[in-house]
Amino acid sequence: MKVNISYIELKTTFKEILLKYNFEEDDAELCSEIFAENTLCGVLSHGINRFPLFIELVQKGKINPKAKLEKIISFNSLERWDGNYGAGPLNAWRMTDRAIELAKKYGIGLIALKNTNHWMRAATYGWKAANEGFLFMCWTNTIPNMPPWGGIEPKTGNNPIVFAFPRSNGNVVLDMALSQYSYGKLATLMYERKKLPVVGGFDEKGNLTDDPEAIYKTQRALPIGFWKGSGLSLLLDLFATVLSGGNSTADLSKLDDDYGMSQIFIAINPVVFTSQKEIDLIAEKIINFYNSSKRLEGEQILYPGERTLIIRNENFKNGILIEEKIWETVISLKNN
Amino acid sequence: MKVNISYIELKTTFKEILLKYNFEEDDAELCSEIFAENTLCGVLSHGINRFPLFIELVQKGKINPKAKLEKIISFNSLERWDGNYGAGPLNAWRMTDRAIELAKKYGIGLIALKNTNHWMRAATYGWKAANEGFLFMCWTNTIPNMPPWGGIEPKTGNNPIVFAFPRSNGNVVLDMALSQYSYGKLATLMYERKKLPVVGGFDEKGNLTDDPEAIYKTQRALPIGFWKGSGLSLLLDLFATVLSGGNSTADLSKLDDDYGMSQIFIAINPVVFTSQKEIDLIAEKIINFYNSSKRLEGEQILYPGERTLIIRNENFKNGILIEEKIWETVISLKNN
Repeated sequence: MKVNISYIELKTTFKEILLKYNFEEDDAELCSEIFAENTLCGVLSHGINRFPLFIELVQKGKINPKAKLEKIISFNSLERWDGNYGAGPLNAWRMTDRAIELAKKYGIGLIALKNTNHWMRAATYGWKAANEGFLFMCWTNTIPNMPPWGGIEPKTGNNPIVFAFPRSNGNVVLDMALSQYSYGKLATLMYERKKLPVVGGFDEKGNLTDDPEAIYKTQRALPIGFWKGSGLSLLLDLFATVLSGGNSTADLSKLDDDYGMSQIFIAINPVVFTSQKEIDLIAEKIINFYNSSKRLEGEQILYPGERTLIIRNENFKNGILIEEKIWETVISLKNN
Repeated sequence: MKVNISYIELKTTFKEILLKYNFEEDDAELCSEIFAENTLCGVLSHGINRFPLFIELVQKGKINPKAKLEKIISFNSLERWDGNYGAGPLNAWRMTDRAIELAKKYGIGLIALKNTNHWMRAATYGWKAANEGFLFMCWTNTIPNMPPWGGIEPKTGNNPIVFAFPRSNGNVVLDMALSQYSYGKLATLMYERKKLPVVGGFDEKGNLTDDPEAIYKTQRALPIGFWKGSGLSLLLDLFATVLSGGNSTADLSKLDDDYGMSQIFIAINPVVFTSQKEIDLIAEKIINFYNSSKRLEGEQILYPGERTLIIRNENFKNGILIEEKIWETVISLKNN
C-alpha cells in the first residue's frame, strides 16, 4: 500500500521532527529540504526511507544536531575541515558551498572533510554545484560493503563518486556507487521482488547473479568493471583519508554504527575561461553525438541526470508515492 | 617468435629514430624514455607496439616534432594550454609537471590541454606525479570507440582516467579505460588467441561475450559498470572539452586520424597537511585491510600498480620479450 504525499508535506513533516530532535531552525530548514528533495527526485532509499534511521542515529548520539563545522587547516585552494559528527547532509551541503567559494577565488578548490556522517544522496551536492554554474566532483568513503577483486569478504567501500556539469537545459550529474548496485537499490528491488537489470554480485556458489537476495546473503557485491571499480574504491579511500586526516574504511569497520566517514569536494569555476552560453553550445554538441548512436528497438539513451529531472517534475506535479508503513513510521516520530 | 631486448637498447633505438624524425635532443631523450618505460612496465600496446604508428603520424604531419606547449589563459590554480599537436607523451609529461607546480603554489592545480595527441600509457603521468609525492588525477578523451549505454554504435570514448597516490613502498596507481578492455588489450589477446578473463562487450547477436574478435567485429565494447561507465565517459569528455576549449569526442570523430584530443591534469599537494611518513602509515593500514579479505584458492588481491612494479623489476633484470616482427619494424625505421 502506498500513500501520495506532496513535496511540501514531506518537507514540513521532516522539519517538524528535526526541530523536535534539537536541530536549530536554519539547520532543520535545510536538512528537511534535502531529505524532501531526494525523495522528490525518486531516490527514496536516501530520502524518506532512510529518515527514520537518521533520527535513530541522532537519538543514539552518533549524529550531533548542534555540531558546527570547523576549519582545521588550509593552504590556498585546499582546506581540511572537521564535521564534528554533525548531520551528513548539512555538512556536505556547506562544504559544497565552501568548495565553490574556493573555486571562485582560485579557479579550483578542494575540501577534505573528516568526522562527518552519511550524506544521503551523493547527487544532491552535484546538482547544487551545477545549479550554481560549477563543474564539480565529490566522493565519500563508506563502511566495508564490497569485496576487493580477488576476495570474498567485504573489505572495501562502494565509495560513491559524483561528477556534475552545469547546463542550462538540464545539468549532467553522474552519481555512482562503485558497486554495480548500492545496497539501497538491492533492498528496494528485493522489496519489490524484482531481479536486477544486469548481474550485480556473486551467489553462494561463486557465480555472477541478478538475484538481489543472493547478493545480500553472500555480501559479495560486484565492483563496477570488476577489478577496476575495486581499485578505484581503494584510491578514493586513500585520497579521502589522507587529505581529511579522518577515518578510512578500515577505521569505519571498527565503529559500532554507520557514522564518522571522510569526504572530498572539488569545485571548478569554468567561467574564468568561458561563458555559460558557450558551455551550453559545447554540451549540446556532445550530448547530441552521444544520443546519435543507433539503438535496438525499445532501448533508450539517456545522459546522467536526465531521468532525475523527468521523475522530479512528475513527482512535483502528481505527488510522491510512498510506502504507507514508512510514512506511518515518519509520522510517529512527530507524535512520539 | 620473440626477441629479448634490454631497456637501454630500447631507449637508445627510440631516441635515434626520434632524432632522425626531427625531434630536438631533449624531446627525443624524454620521449624515448617514456616509450621505453611503458614497454618495461609490460604495457607493450602503449610502448614499442605503438611506436611505429607514432612515427607514421609524425611522417603524416599529424604530430609536430617541433611543437611547443603554449599557455592560453590562466586563473590562479587553473590553466588552459594548447599542445599545438606536439607529441602526446611530451605534452602530457610537461603538463603533469605544470600541474605539480600549481599544486605547490595553491595546494591543488588543474591544467586543461587542447590540441594534443595520444599520450600512450595513461599511468605514466600518475607514476611521475606520485614519485614526486603528489596525489594526482588525469584523463583524456578519445575517438568514439564505445557505444553509449542503450546504443549499438560507438558514439562515446573509453576516455582513460588515472588516480595516483604516493607511497614510499610502491605508489598506488589506477589507470583505467572506461571500456572493460581497451582495444589495445583486445588486440593483444586476439593476437595470443586468448579469451577475455571476464565479458568485455557484445557479439553480433547482442549477447555479452568474452571473445575479443567478436567485440572487434561489432565495435560494441562494454562500458565498465554498464550504464555507469557510459555516463562517466560523457562527463569526462564534457569536462575536458569545456575546460580546454579543444576537441570533444564528437569533434575527433570527424578527423582523418587519431590526433588532437583534450586532456585534464589535476595535482594535489598532500604535504601542506601531512608528511610522507604519515601518508605511508595511513596507506599501509588501508592496503592491509583491503588485502585481509578471505579469498578463494588460487585468487590474489592486488592493489592498483602492484603488478606493474613486479613486471618492471623482472623486465629490468631479464630484458623484455618483444615480437620479432615488431622489433624488425622499429629497427627498419632507424635504417630507412
